[in-house]
Amino acid sequence: MDTRELAARAKKASRRLATANAVEKNRALLAMADALDRRAAEILVENQEDVTEGRKNGLSPALIDRLLLDEERLAGIARSLRDIAALPDPVGEVVAGWRTPEGLEIQKVRVPFGVIAVVYEARPNVTVDAAALCLKTGNAVILRGGSDAYRSNRILTEVITGAALEAGLPGDVIQFVPSKDRAVLIELLQLREYIDLIIPRGGEALKDFLLEHSKVPVIYAAGGNCHVYVDQSADLKQALDITINAKCQRPGVCNAAETLLVHAAVAPAFLPVVVKALQERKVKLYVDARTRDIVGETEPRLYRATDKHYATEFLDLEMAVKVVDSLQEAVDHIARFGTGHSEAIITQDLEAARQFAQMVDAAAIYINASTRFTDGGVYGLGAEIGISTQKLHARGPLALKELTSTKYVVTGRGHIR
Amino acid sequence: MDTRELAARAKKASRRLATANAVEKNRALLAMADALDRRAAEILVENQEDVTEGRKNGLSPALIDRLLLDEERLAGIARSLRDIAALPDPVGEVVAGWRTPEGLEIQKVRVPFGVIAVVYEARPNVTVDAAALCLKTGNAVILRGGSDAYRSNRILTEVITGAALEAGLPGDVIQFVPSKDRAVLIELLQLREYIDLIIPRGGEALKDFLLEHSKVPVIYAAGGNCHVYVDQSADLKQALDITINAKCQRPGVCNAAETLLVHAAVAPAFLPVVVKALQERKVKLYVDARTRDIVGETEPRLYRATDKHYATEFLDLEMAVKVVDSLQEAVDHIARFGTGHSEAIITQDLEAARQFAQMVDAAAIYINASTRFTDGGVYGLGAEIGISTQKLHARGPLALKELTSTKYVVTGRGHIR
Repeated sequence: MDTRELAARAKKASRRLATANAVEKNRALLAMADALDRRAAEILVENQEDVTEGRKNGLSPALIDRLLLDEERLAGIARSLRDIAALPDPVGEVVAGWRTPEGLEIQKVRVPFGVIAVVYEARPNVTVDAAALCLKTGNAVILRGGSDAYRSNRILTEVITGAALEAGLPGDVIQFVPSKDRAVLIELLQLREYIDLIIPRGGEALKDFLLEHSKVPVIYAAGGNCHVYVDQSADLKQALDITINAKCQRPGVCNAAETLLVHAAVAPAFLPVVVKALQERKVKLYVDARTRDIVGETEPRLYRATDKHYATEFLDLEMAVKVVDSLQEAVDHIARFGTGHSEAIITQDLEAARQFAQMVDAAAIYINASTRFTDGGVYGLGAEIGISTQKLHARGPLALKELTSTKYVVTGRGHIR
Repeated sequence: MDTRELAARAKKASRRLATANAVEKNRALLAMADALDRRAAEILVENQEDVTEGRKNGLSPALIDRLLLDEERLAGIARSLRDIAALPDPVGEVVAGWRTPEGLEIQKVRVPFGVIAVVYEARPNVTVDAAALCLKTGNAVILRGGSDAYRSNRILTEVITGAALEAGLPGDVIQFVPSKDRAVLIELLQLREYIDLIIPRGGEALKDFLLEHSKVPVIYAAGGNCHVYVDQSADLKQALDITINAKCQRPGVCNAAETLLVHAAVAPAFLPVVVKALQERKVKLYVDARTRDIVGETEPRLYRATDKHYATEFLDLEMAVKVVDSLQEAVDHIARFGTGHSEAIITQDLEAARQFAQMVDAAAIYINASTRFTDGGVYGLGAEIGISTQKLHARGPLALKELTSTKYVVTGRGHIR
């Protein structure tokens, strides 16, 4: 089947799916979970072939780990389907409603987008998560995974599509792009008449590729160059705990902190302590001259920070450090180097907190809390498909509501203008 | 000043504007209105030059009319500024707020986008309206009007920018692109680092141009191929009034109806009446064979409808007509030819109304009301910058709230993960 035909089928199926009620959709999600449990052995065989080939192709251990499924991980994927089934259905929610002076009744109602294409890299769990989140919100989904997980994605799609079909949903609501070809991806990105939204999950290279080629609206779940700013009024114990947590608890994720900004007034008291604590946790530090002057020689050594370091999302045990003379300087630094993801201030001063929250332009601002909290689950929004750093449509966790649009339904009794 | 520099200045100014409160912004809007009144004579002189040149260049009378300002129209523009000043400021609204089980306090707060570029065609009133709506919502604005209104737009921008500056806003919050060059527009569309959103106001050609070139997120205020469907259960008096209103009250606008769909069960009773009424109002009709069979010969004559007619947004006293055998056939026709703008059903049957509202994928669905109601003012949302037919971010009238994004502000007391 060619890509255009596949997308046209998804569009047609999306019309029927849009009118499916929550009971029907949840039944399909639970059937998908059961099918994953039941066919685990088959899936693991296919996945093992991907892993073997990946090793042959020289994938890094980290990438192999992302690719690898085992019984426990597969059970976790099935469990996440059941969790999604248990969430409330956003479709049909009346977001607002009122009556005009002329007596027209206006309702703004939450509706599915139609067809969502998810473009992602190695992790096969995304195949199932993305399909489930789209299906739950009444959207047909086109899945285009990375070529390293090709066999895993193919069998996973086959298993969940079969289950959805048996549960009574139209068979075309989940489409797998059966090609590793980039030209096919490019074709997908032109199909504005059939695809309503594209969500990339991957690094900056994927984002830039879509930026270049997509004619379909895109929500970017992009990288995070996140900062912790320790204000002059900070509780330094909180500042220490939050800095360590934001950097070290899981350094490979987008809401981990990459740069520490410290107000000059507390730098002499705070920097020696935080540098030592970070170094004990094997964090490699890139520091400005003022930090070095305050901290002196250390073992291991401190590296000299350049703008390149301040602009880097390390996603590893590395951190840049800088002393600033004011909250405004911290805000300006974040405006220059930040990616609008998650930004924290540690302060006891109400006005400093207010100003930071107002002036910093990011999806999530933290006052005396770790940047690591930016997460749909933690926020209580349920499963999410990624964190949006763009301002159009949805900013922050892309949970169920963010996968919907709205329409106005206006009722009169012969009203004319 | 080159385009990049201009956009960079707008971005910088937007940071300060984002923290301006409603009193400051409204003071500027009122000052802008007063300045328009005070400098009316100057503005009309410049506008007259545009009109003279437009006539020389062979602009149609309709386009000349859109271009033309007079004292009354200018007073109307100033009045719309005062109306916008009187609307509530959406910035700072807490859209939602809750506490997580761990005690984190989460607020989702409405914030400006930053910099919005508005790209539009001849009408000079858009210059002032767009600037006012953006300023009210804390966004810096880059105005790129059509070359036919170049002098009018330049003087209008100068007058309102001067007034905003005197009222204490940063001078760079309103930027006028001082070039008629398309290359400059293309450059604007690449400046993702400075421009947060582009809103085109114009026809399909402008939309397609942006689609091709823009790397910045866009909200399309696109055309409307709107339908009136007369169900078998319709009150035929309502159906007649609504059809005439939707087609004839103002045929040149995007929410006017272009096609009439009539259920076969009521076609014999309804079609002769509606055809006569439309023809009396000088509407040229393109009809299918069944309509012709029912209505017979008329004076003026009926034309044969083709798919081309069903796909056309006439924006004039022309209408396509088709008999359908079911609500489903009407829905399918609308899915094929509609542009997702405004779609009406005339019915007394609750289940038909429900199904039509659910199955038709459009910004606004009307039950027993004219499509002509899709309008920010009529909905009670206040002034708007256009009607969005896209599903991302905002669908329907783009009023003040739709010109904002949100951020999460999360407060803890040393919370770590």
